[in-house]
Amino acid sequence: MIPVEEARNRILRALAPVAAETLPLAAAGGRVLARPVHARLTQPPADVSAMDGYAVRAADAAEGALLRVAGSAPAGHPFAGAVNPGEAVRIFTGAVVPAGADGILLQEDAEASEGRVRVGEAVRAGRWIRRRGLDFEEGETLLPAGRRLTARDVGLAAAANHPWLTVHRRPRIGVLATGDEIALPGEPIPPGGIVSSNAHALAALVRAAGGEPLVLPIAPDDEAAIAEAAEAARGCDLLVTTGGASVGEHDLVQSALGPGGFALDFWRIAMRPGKPLIWGRLGQTPLLGLPGNPVSALVCGVVFLLPALHRLSGLPDAAGPRTARVRLGSALPENDRRFDFLRARLERTAEGDVSVLPFPVQDSSMLKTLARADALVLRPPHAPAAATGDAVEAILLADLGV
Amino acid sequence: MIPVEEARNRILRALAPVAAETLPLAAAGGRVLARPVHARLTQPPADVSAMDGYAVRAADAAEGALLRVAGSAPAGHPFAGAVNPGEAVRIFTGAVVPAGADGILLQEDAEASEGRVRVGEAVRAGRWIRRRGLDFEEGETLLPAGRRLTARDVGLAAAANHPWLTVHRRPRIGVLATGDEIALPGEPIPPGGIVSSNAHALAALVRAAGGEPLVLPIAPDDEAAIAEAAEAARGCDLLVTTGGASVGEHDLVQSALGPGGFALDFWRIAMRPGKPLIWGRLGQTPLLGLPGNPVSALVCGVVFLLPALHRLSGLPDAAGPRTARVRLGSALPENDRRFDFLRARLERTAEGDVSVLPFPVQDSSMLKTLARADALVLRPPHAPAAATGDAVEAILLADLGV
Repeated sequence: MIPVEEARNRILRALAPVAAETLPLAAAGGRVLARPVHARLTQPPADVSAMDGYAVRAADAAEGALLRVAGSAPAGHPFAGAVNPGEAVRIFTGAVVPAGADGILLQEDAEASEGRVRVGEAVRAGRWIRRRGLDFEEGETLLPAGRRLTARDVGLAAAANHPWLTVHRRPRIGVLATGDEIALPGEPIPPGGIVSSNAHALAALVRAAGGEPLVLPIAPDDEAAIAEAAEAARGCDLLVTTGGASVGEHDLVQSALGPGGFALDFWRIAMRPGKPLIWGRLGQTPLLGLPGNPVSALVCGVVFLLPALHRLSGLPDAAGPRTARVRLGSALPENDRRFDFLRARLERTAEGDVSVLPFPVQDSSMLKTLARADALVLRPPHAPAAATGDAVEAILLADLGV
Repeated sequence: MIPVEEARNRILRALAPVAAETLPLAAAGGRVLARPVHARLTQPPADVSAMDGYAVRAADAAEGALLRVAGSAPAGHPFAGAVNPGEAVRIFTGAVVPAGADGILLQEDAEASEGRVRVGEAVRAGRWIRRRGLDFEEGETLLPAGRRLTARDVGLAAAANHPWLTVHRRPRIGVLATGDEIALPGEPIPPGGIVSSNAHALAALVRAAGGEPLVLPIAPDDEAAIAEAAEAARGCDLLVTTGGASVGEHDLVQSALGPGGFALDFWRIAMRPGKPLIWGRLGQTPLLGLPGNPVSALVCGVVFLLPALHRLSGLPDAAGPRTARVRLGSALPENDRRFDFLRARLERTAEGDVSVLPFPVQDSSMLKTLARADALVLRPPHAPAAATGDAVEAILLADLGV
């Protein structure tokens, strides 16, 4: 059995970001930049007004002064002339400050009548003017490669005049469920069998993490069938299998894939749930064999598959799923040599702080409990007993979109 | 000017969840359930083994006992007979425990040879058996209506034998940018103009929140053009405009929409950034008019449009964007009568706690600063001065997917 960290590092070291594609800006939200976004212009492109009012010469605009309104400068319609001494130009937020003007008389401080405007409050030079380049300068790097584009980033790339962006394509992930005992939802269930849940849950996880799942037909517990199904995944960036990873006689994935050129790296991890986990390579395709147990499969999906997806997607820091520091709402015993991932719910205390409460029964067959969990509490090997109120690290599942 | 909370409540009260559609389970991840998911079967359907090993009668399985192996029960291939006194049946994880057996001899405690198995450690009755219904019982409600389906939920619905789910359809959101001064990225920029960024940033926000954006052609500052563009949005669940919401002469949205049957509810909010905000109804279509300023538009998008999307999507508690309690990494002055949303970054301290640092310059034209923000710190009206280390509420932007 190898430790969780080492297993994850070996998985991540074996993977590289997938290639780039060109996408219209409007389709790039949520994707990971393969090339940085530089500013193609300076923003604002000139000194502009931060408010609605009048562009004036501050020296003229003492309280009570009366200025001649020489014209108007709405946003997008710059005033062609200059503001001469004794003059003002009507201006609106975002409009270019005309030549000669060096301050803005706010609309609420101005009293306009018959082509003139009276200054209600003295204007300070430079006040309410946004300087050219306040937001960004042409050529500046605005967004680095490796960044997953938020809605705000899409706005910034648009403002920097990019109709197209270069992003990593979505990693294609083959998902292969194996087992004589499983049937697709709605299909006849074999005697003693159960409904297959892993493949579609993992596909949803892949999609939530920005990947493109390819759900293969269920392979029965038969070497030829498994090898054939896996063949179908050769065009994938990663093949994920579920079932067939433990030591039982009926766990055939390892032996079935051997003739197809399967090279095993490791296959047992010191964690709970989820000990039996295969990592290797089928020809050119990396293969992650998850346990057949649905809870173990999904927890391993969070702990190993998500970081793998991040790495394939081109994200830079894929050391593991993001964790948060939270306070325990109940005590925990000392841990043994396996890394535990405890299903837990979060509770907001009366003081507004968050505490985490591991479910008392952690049986790995309880999918309902996993679905109701808000978090996985991390209990490293040999972690000492922890008391109520102690801080622990936890994976907040909702924040990962899974 | 009306308070932020009141504005949001008026928006939410005017909206109702959109209708339902039937989707294949495999396409339902991230969607919101319109009907609860009940268990269509009991899971596990019978008492099953939690481990690989041998199903035995505990009374026979004292340490050192030798039992006859009467057969084998892989998952999906139940053993047809019963376990008689002195017998054992080879069993694998998830397989049905045969009649007669009441305990599991673990594989690692068993020594098999020539059709017999020796008990290495005495078996306790009931140990390593998962009882029928441990996970869920037929008829039980597993997932309530109004829940956004996680990958785990998809797995649970699959395990409960649902090939189809009834979810709310995606809310259709029209996005209309207005202004003579704006041009689409890559298109010729008018003199004194800027590149349009709001529409695509808001479309990305809509998509991240599970909505379906419909980006309308930019409308120039002309009443007829705006009214025509808005007409195109009549089939939407919500029309979002940007620009044209402030008091300037060139802010035409309110007047342009009047002839089309626009009924105004309110249009100014005591917040910063984002004071000018229109809420009303254009015929049957609710209309949210966001400021033209990109930072204001996006902050208002988070504060008002996201909750509106949640409400339309069928989520139950849409009182406002989710906040977290974080510690200030720098002091803040007393606030005035407007609700401030301060762009801020998060920093993890050496002790592993998170602190939040508002950017020193909060000018609402700085889109780059907004893109780099991790959080919006909430500063309610008249909030007292706050010191480093004080707790504040903040919207964690990454957690909202925007």
